[in-house]
Amino acid sequence: MQHDNPEVTLITADAPVSAETHGGRAKCLQRLVRLDLPVPRTIALSFKAVRAIAAGEMADGAALLEPFGPHPLLCVRPSSEDPDWGGPRAVLNIGMCDAKRAELAETLGEAAAAKLYLRFVQSYAIHVARLDPDVLDDVSDDPVKGLAEALDVYEEEAEEPFPQEPATQLIEVLRSMARAWEGTTARLLRQAKGAPADAGLGLVVQKMALGLGPGECGSGVMQLVNGATGERKITGRYMRQSQGREALSRGADAMYLERDPRGPSLEELAPEAFATLKAHTTLMREKLREEMQAEFTIENGEVFVLDGVRVTRNARTAVSIAVALAEDGIISREEALMRIEPRALNELLHRQVDPEARRDVIARGVAASPGAASGVIVFTSEAAQSMKAQDTPCILVRRETSPEDIRGMHAAAAVLTERGGMTSHAAVIGRGIGLPCVVGASAIRFQTVKRQITAPDGRVFREGDKITIDGTNGEVLAGEAALLEAGHDDSLKVLMAWADDARDIAVRANADTPRDAETARWFSAEGIGLCRTEHMFFETDRLIVMREMIFAGTSDDRAAALDRLLPMQRADFTELFRIMQGKPVCIRLLDPPLHEFLPTGRSGQRELAEALDIPLSDVTRRIEALGEYNPMLGMRGVRLGITVPEIYDMQARAIFEALIEAREEDDPVVPEMMIPLVSASREVELVKSRIDAVAGAVRRETGEEFTYRLGVMVETPRACLRAGDIAPQVAFLSFGTNDLTQMTYGLSRDDAGRFMSDYVQQGVYPEDPFHTLDIYGVGELLKIAAERARAANPDLTLSICGEHGGNPESIAFCREAGFDYVSCSPFRVPVARLAAAQLALRDKIG
Amino acid sequence: MQHDNPEVTLITADAPVSAETHGGRAKCLQRLVRLDLPVPRTIALSFKAVRAIAAGEMADGAALLEPFGPHPLLCVRPSSEDPDWGGPRAVLNIGMCDAKRAELAETLGEAAAAKLYLRFVQSYAIHVARLDPDVLDDVSDDPVKGLAEALDVYEEEAEEPFPQEPATQLIEVLRSMARAWEGTTARLLRQAKGAPADAGLGLVVQKMALGLGPGECGSGVMQLVNGATGERKITGRYMRQSQGREALSRGADAMYLERDPRGPSLEELAPEAFATLKAHTTLMREKLREEMQAEFTIENGEVFVLDGVRVTRNARTAVSIAVALAEDGIISREEALMRIEPRALNELLHRQVDPEARRDVIARGVAASPGAASGVIVFTSEAAQSMKAQDTPCILVRRETSPEDIRGMHAAAAVLTERGGMTSHAAVIGRGIGLPCVVGASAIRFQTVKRQITAPDGRVFREGDKITIDGTNGEVLAGEAALLEAGHDDSLKVLMAWADDARDIAVRANADTPRDAETARWFSAEGIGLCRTEHMFFETDRLIVMREMIFAGTSDDRAAALDRLLPMQRADFTELFRIMQGKPVCIRLLDPPLHEFLPTGRSGQRELAEALDIPLSDVTRRIEALGEYNPMLGMRGVRLGITVPEIYDMQARAIFEALIEAREEDDPVVPEMMIPLVSASREVELVKSRIDAVAGAVRRETGEEFTYRLGVMVETPRACLRAGDIAPQVAFLSFGTNDLTQMTYGLSRDDAGRFMSDYVQQGVYPEDPFHTLDIYGVGELLKIAAERARAANPDLTLSICGEHGGNPESIAFCREAGFDYVSCSPFRVPVARLAAAQLALRDKIG
Repeated sequence: MQHDNPEVTLITADAPVSAETHGGRAKCLQRLVRLDLPVPRTIALSFKAVRAIAAGEMADGAALLEPFGPHPLLCVRPSSEDPDWGGPRAVLNIGMCDAKRAELAETLGEAAAAKLYLRFVQSYAIHVARLDPDVLDDVSDDPVKGLAEALDVYEEEAEEPFPQEPATQLIEVLRSMARAWEGTTARLLRQAKGAPADAGLGLVVQKMALGLGPGECGSGVMQLVNGATGERKITGRYMRQSQGREALSRGADAMYLERDPRGPSLEELAPEAFATLKAHTTLMREKLREEMQAEFTIENGEVFVLDGVRVTRNARTAVSIAVALAEDGIISREEALMRIEPRALNELLHRQVDPEARRDVIARGVAASPGAASGVIVFTSEAAQSMKAQDTPCILVRRETSPEDIRGMHAAAAVLTERGGMTSHAAVIGRGIGLPCVVGASAIRFQTVKRQITAPDGRVFREGDKITIDGTNGEVLAGEAALLEAGHDDSLKVLMAWADDARDIAVRANADTPRDAETARWFSAEGIGLCRTEHMFFETDRLIVMREMIFAGTSDDRAAALDRLLPMQRADFTELFRIMQGKPVCIRLLDPPLHEFLPTGRSGQRELAEALDIPLSDVTRRIEALGEYNPMLGMRGVRLGITVPEIYDMQARAIFEALIEAREEDDPVVPEMMIPLVSASREVELVKSRIDAVAGAVRRETGEEFTYRLGVMVETPRACLRAGDIAPQVAFLSFGTNDLTQMTYGLSRDDAGRFMSDYVQQGVYPEDPFHTLDIYGVGELLKIAAERARAANPDLTLSICGEHGGNPESIAFCREAGFDYVSCSPFRVPVARLAAAQLALRDKIG
Repeated sequence: MQHDNPEVTLITADAPVSAETHGGRAKCLQRLVRLDLPVPRTIALSFKAVRAIAAGEMADGAALLEPFGPHPLLCVRPSSEDPDWGGPRAVLNIGMCDAKRAELAETLGEAAAAKLYLRFVQSYAIHVARLDPDVLDDVSDDPVKGLAEALDVYEEEAEEPFPQEPATQLIEVLRSMARAWEGTTARLLRQAKGAPADAGLGLVVQKMALGLGPGECGSGVMQLVNGATGERKITGRYMRQSQGREALSRGADAMYLERDPRGPSLEELAPEAFATLKAHTTLMREKLREEMQAEFTIENGEVFVLDGVRVTRNARTAVSIAVALAEDGIISREEALMRIEPRALNELLHRQVDPEARRDVIARGVAASPGAASGVIVFTSEAAQSMKAQDTPCILVRRETSPEDIRGMHAAAAVLTERGGMTSHAAVIGRGIGLPCVVGASAIRFQTVKRQITAPDGRVFREGDKITIDGTNGEVLAGEAALLEAGHDDSLKVLMAWADDARDIAVRANADTPRDAETARWFSAEGIGLCRTEHMFFETDRLIVMREMIFAGTSDDRAAALDRLLPMQRADFTELFRIMQGKPVCIRLLDPPLHEFLPTGRSGQRELAEALDIPLSDVTRRIEALGEYNPMLGMRGVRLGITVPEIYDMQARAIFEALIEAREEDDPVVPEMMIPLVSASREVELVKSRIDAVAGAVRRETGEEFTYRLGVMVETPRACLRAGDIAPQVAFLSFGTNDLTQMTYGLSRDDAGRFMSDYVQQGVYPEDPFHTLDIYGVGELLKIAAERARAANPDLTLSICGEHGGNPESIAFCREAGFDYVSCSPFRVPVARLAAAQLALRDKIG
């Protein structure tokens, strides 16, 4: 043993071992040693030492054997900096040779000794000598005979006898593992998990605790929690006369640890060993401050702890483990909060395709609304509704969706479209109602008239065939996939409560419907940050009236249509306000261009012609005339509010009247009315004066008092630059970063799909700016606007709404810019709450 | 006369008279007095005095009569601050009454005296007593009898006898004129001409020089230049025994002033009076430093100058008058430059509808390309070409134009479309080739299949009917209108040369074709600031190859198509470079989305399917797949250059090879290559490295050296904000303010037409930001970009291209921001040169 060499060191309580130099496993083993756990003697090879071995610069294994005494059996395990980065598989029983076999035969018997030797020869042949994996397949099942055959085959194939020197065996094993780490596949795999290009590998060489032989011998793993369910129960397996992780292999003749009605257990078999093991694992949990899995061996009744690793967990168990550790006083609440990756919560909040399940991917599209669902294909909204009536889950497949498909979308389990991007109709509605949705799957051929779709590989799926939509990653799968249910358990609620204590920026939800609002409350959103009102007009009964309004020839006709819309809008808002009692509700006045409300297909146009009792040609002519070259940059938002002011008048009245109607209790909603797409302060002035006038009229008519706040949705670069003019007129500014990103880049989100992946791959954009807020361009506009607005009106509320609102990076940005709240889709509220808490905690730590 | 009252003052050389207090006419008369010209005695009433009269606060006319001696005859004329603001019509012969009639009968005879009296009674009855204009229509033609009847009618209708007191007459005339000034119509009319709401009216009361009586008596006007043509020739009229401007009335028995073969002249009739008058008018021109029209009266051989006004002029004569005054040393060159409104030059540079002509307006649209033309309606490009073959001017009428209409547009005299705005295909091409164009005339019903259009008033115009397109103001006129030819005469050239001496910012032209380039050189542009290359692909032979390129299934097919486009592009650039010898030519790499090159109609799609030998359904499917929701924000510009880099490679090669081919002389073009729609600096990096590689390859292949400059068209807000990253990589930045305005406002120019006029009328936007650069929003982005870019690369050339480039306001902004040049359409180059000169001169004056 090179005592003067910190690169190769015996793991003792005070050895110079760190995760950064020797890897996480070496460090963990040192911790176990410090806890006085019975860890077999172990040496740690640093990253540097392993690099030297890979380069052939350390050829002598004898010195490494020194600490282990004469004729040891050893195992080598990888020790990368982060256990998630993987590494070569462990090699056991190094040191087996003819001499050792003879020695072991005395205690274990001939057969067991030969079996152990044979296994090592097999493992060495494949992983070290790199022989064909199948050359040893045909050796005899009888261990003694099989071993003899194996040694012959080895000599023939490797062109040298099987090495008998333990030192040679060890150094070859180490070199082989060191080189495997440097292979291209291994490098790519770990880089995909976030490892840096130069990530190092450490190795630990440990004296084997055999698990074989006389008395109670065996091996297994123990953990105090069920990693799949989060249940606090001792789980794991033990297998007599076994080594390593044999007890876990499928079909192994293993037993339970704790007493269990389903079969024999270690607790019954060897109560003392069980108690010792349980104490060790409990100590590991307490002192390592983490839920650990102990790998153990029992040798003639004596318990050895070979290794400890973090219990593998999914997002849900991660939350329950962190909460339990904090509730047990092992870690602080703050630490529990910091241990959960906010984005991982997404996994909890929607149904997911089981990551273990087979995925038969037909094609990929844009992951437009998260969650997964399976069902039969339908091509029309009518068919979707009829399936729903039969309780058959269905997937609505359309080239693109339009307002006429709303009912079908409500009836479907998921939606798939050929066209569109993250802001297409299907995507927006899908996210709004929590419907899994893949859009822009243009690799699939949509033959809606033939009622079939054709996959890029030629497979045809017809109406009634089953498919699965994975809206979380954009995949379309053939058949019905195994799904994991969404979970929102007590642990999450506890964690969220702690997050709320920690964070210093508010989180609201974007919610358009009563259902959304209920979800928002369920996720403890502190109000609604964006209620889009256009969806209210897409429901069938309103849509007809809305279209009449659009087609109105005179302002009297228009007023008549609006008069019919008023009670419907009022009812919507009344319901919303009742649900959101005591919270602020920010309502965006009508935003989309009017042509979005008109039927796109011939049959819808015919219906409209009938309903309005005008010739079809008038309808098509009018629809054509309303068409726009760039609807995103057209007659929408406040431009509508100024050109057809009666619409905003009606909406304002509906809001005020609903407010009065809904406030039976003492804690009323404070409605916030938000003007979209502003580019000049005079727009705000004009709308404000009309809304104030409507408020005055409603007050006079009803004799009731009420308050409201008026604000602007900042979506154009110009509104950012002129924020100083706008701010004094309003109570709040909320940044619509979707549209602002589109305008700052000159890039339509719906059309960007065609080249965005190219762009991100080539590093033209470091990330898709529609997913991650572009702090260098869009962000500068936000900062300019925030500074100018606050300077002009220090009482102003500042916030961000839209897709970016739930992103941890955006929340960080908004906190730094001094915003008051972020608003995101209801399902992202927990993510945002946790991310905000982590940011605040990080600041506190400094 | 109230000598102590400066509000009512006798006009003498040192009287306290100014245009700001007494009006322009009063001031001009004082100048004539100072020149010792024979001006009849005149008093000036200030704005304040006139207001007092209107309010009834000055009831006594006697004091006003005082300076004129006993029994004077007087006239009153308006004197507003700016003569263009108009005013009530002059009233002559105040003081006529029974007594004066008797007095005048002695010198003039009974009939003449009665006629004078009758005229005054008629004028007074209508303009002062406000009787029905026709009540005096039926009086006898015999003056004596007629007068008696008129006095009777007056007494009956006015319910009082005709006033016999000159003081009463005068004060009533003054009050009537003062009140007329305050009428609503008069106010609106003058405000339309730029008068402030509180503009005042002065009045001048002048002793009549009679123009009637024994000896040579008469009146007329003289000017030294023909106001319509600019010809330096004494023009005007004289009429014996007449008053005021009678000589100018249609059918008047008037004579020429100067000897003239067409008829009798004052020069022949009264050579002395003529010489005196000519001397007076010449003195007025010299001393008033302006081309003046003298109103004169000859009384018994003696010449009186009653008034002087600026000669009425159109834009063309304005230039020749200013240049002549400067060449005669009467004003400086600087003053000549300052006297011309730059925008007025537009009138010179295109054919115009004669402003005097009758305009039968069918409808109005967007004035998309200036100039006017008449012709027969055609509805297809084929028809336009066949009309052209027959030398029949035609107007191409389309719902909207597409690349397939290019040939038709070249064949037509003007274009009219139903859809589109200032950046629609028709508009852009129209301006590029100088074709008058009205787009977005959606009030007209386009029935192209029926081959007719229906005006809002129901009139139907069929193929072959004549209409006139006024692209300068957006009007569509029925029939053939009288047109004024464009003029670009020597005076303009002289003025432009002076402007070039004065200005300190360069002016380039936007030019896409050799024809544009020739126009640019003709207007002395200092290079091409924007050469759009897409038009090169719209010509029939290229369009087919371009479409093959777009439809290419493999990169080999694409390369083959590009190989065929290369020689065509090279030939385009070679021609362009030969024309622009010695000047910089800034070429924008391909910008529009590829779908713009595809046929929109079924027949074009069928042709394409045939040409490519693929099924029609493949063509339509592909075209559909390339469609975009917001093409403005889609896959265009540098995004194309990065996604399909072979296109820019081909263009770069064509430019370099053309450069070598064109440089036979010593003064080669320095080509500038401009990357459109950049939003991230990495885009520039990628394109730059490929273009540099192409340059290297061409140098190796040809053994020739050449230089070029690479730059960025800054069109997105993000490119402005990130200008500091972009600038070090390039030689120039040119701001595309059209697109930048669209993105900063979130406003599509093509779609804004629907509400822009509403918006400007309601003051939401002070002006259409596509016409006048928005200095508060877009302008701030330009400034941010300029500062950051210059800080990062001090040698950078900065410029603006696009529609705003030619506007005086934009040029002012660019000068202040330290830009190197502006670039605008060739026809606006003179406007820009003059505007730039005026700005520099204004700065010099301080």
